[in-house]
Amino acid sequence: MGEQGEVFAGPAYRDAVIDLLGTLAYGELSAFLRLAGDAELAPTLSAKAALSGLAVVEFHHYELLRDRLVGLDADPEAAMAPFVTAIEAFHERTAPTTWLEGLVKYYVGDGIATDFYREVSAFVDPETRDLVLGALADAGQAEFVVHEVRSAIEAEPALAGRLALWGRRLMGEALSQAQRVAADRDTFAVLLVGADGVPGAGLTEIVHMFGRITERHTKRLKSLGLST
Amino acid sequence: MGEQGEVFAGPAYRDAVIDLLGTLAYGELSAFLRLAGDAELAPTLSAKAALSGLAVVEFHHYELLRDRLVGLDADPEAAMAPFVTAIEAFHERTAPTTWLEGLVKYYVGDGIATDFYREVSAFVDPETRDLVLGALADAGQAEFVVHEVRSAIEAEPALAGRLALWGRRLMGEALSQAQRVAADRDTFAVLLVGADGVPGAGLTEIVHMFGRITERHTKRLKSLGLST
Repeated sequence: MGEQGEVFAGPAYRDAVIDLLGTLAYGELSAFLRLAGDAELAPTLSAKAALSGLAVVEFHHYELLRDRLVGLDADPEAAMAPFVTAIEAFHERTAPTTWLEGLVKYYVGDGIATDFYREVSAFVDPETRDLVLGALADAGQAEFVVHEVRSAIEAEPALAGRLALWGRRLMGEALSQAQRVAADRDTFAVLLVGADGVPGAGLTEIVHMFGRITERHTKRLKSLGLST
Repeated sequence: MGEQGEVFAGPAYRDAVIDLLGTLAYGELSAFLRLAGDAELAPTLSAKAALSGLAVVEFHHYELLRDRLVGLDADPEAAMAPFVTAIEAFHERTAPTTWLEGLVKYYVGDGIATDFYREVSAFVDPETRDLVLGALADAGQAEFVVHEVRSAIEAEPALAGRLALWGRRLMGEALSQAQRVAADRDTFAVLLVGADGVPGAGLTEIVHMFGRITERHTKRLKSLGLST
């Protein structure tokens, strides 16, 4: 337990950070498993291996987050458990049926998650922040995805509209599951409204935050060549 | 191309080594994907993460082998392609329906593959041999599997007979797919009967080799607590 007094302003704050790490950890673990499953949709062995490689990156992120939870004397399994239902519901409602849907889901889903956690990490202790930002670092793997999707659309322009719809649906499902989690777990509210003497972000900032996340989502769809 | 003359006795020999690396590479890639799929059968989040970790080890082996193929100026996709049907057939005929079947498949299948490639690696160039042995090195991950299977059998002794049957079926399917590959690809025969002035293992040695592999398989089943 040792250093928690120095790291956290108080127990409400610590719980919130553990919830944040737990969501992120299960998000990475399930992203790994889902991506590995989606690799079966790959048209070539090289593409299958490339998506597998992206999946493996998510697994190593999971390992970092799990180790941080252990370092905070939290049980990783207990920390992840409250978020399994919402994250699995997201994946079940957005199971890709084609290789391109799988790629767009990876790119858009990983992007939304990255933006969300980057925003929220502003409210946690510096060590957790460094870890979260490190776990989310994009080592340029996404280039493969952008190239594949843009080439497919060039060859068949009608795909752009269909995949743009898919991209919007991904965002809708992500928001609906995030709302569900926010309603169930008041721990996250601590990071936003404040606790233990630490000020939160405030409601105006939350509205701005979602505005920024939506804006970046739109940019990402454009970078894939999807009309919005 | 540069150093091939020094590394390989001749083109027949080089083809055989590329076939060996291609089988092993696709074997590792498909093991990764199948294990990630089997992780869905895990009874707990920790078990799911543990099997995912074993899968990721296989993916890193795949990366080593792919890099060696590229280093030999071979196209990894072309090198793997001839072995996809047999390896997928093995997996389809041995798709686990329970968590324990999945664990036994990992342990036994990985064991058979390791023994087979270790035997065959005696006939290749030293650099390829080091790589193959490195890719097959067991970093002690299997302990988790042995512990899980033995605990399950202690709690429910009737499982031992059923899982022992499953273990024998895995060996049978592995042999039948190996025979299929051997019949289709005469390149492997080069490693065994010799070519380019390099002596092969000879038929007697092949018989001994399969004897050793079967013996180790039986030992592995015993170490899992499975009656044979």
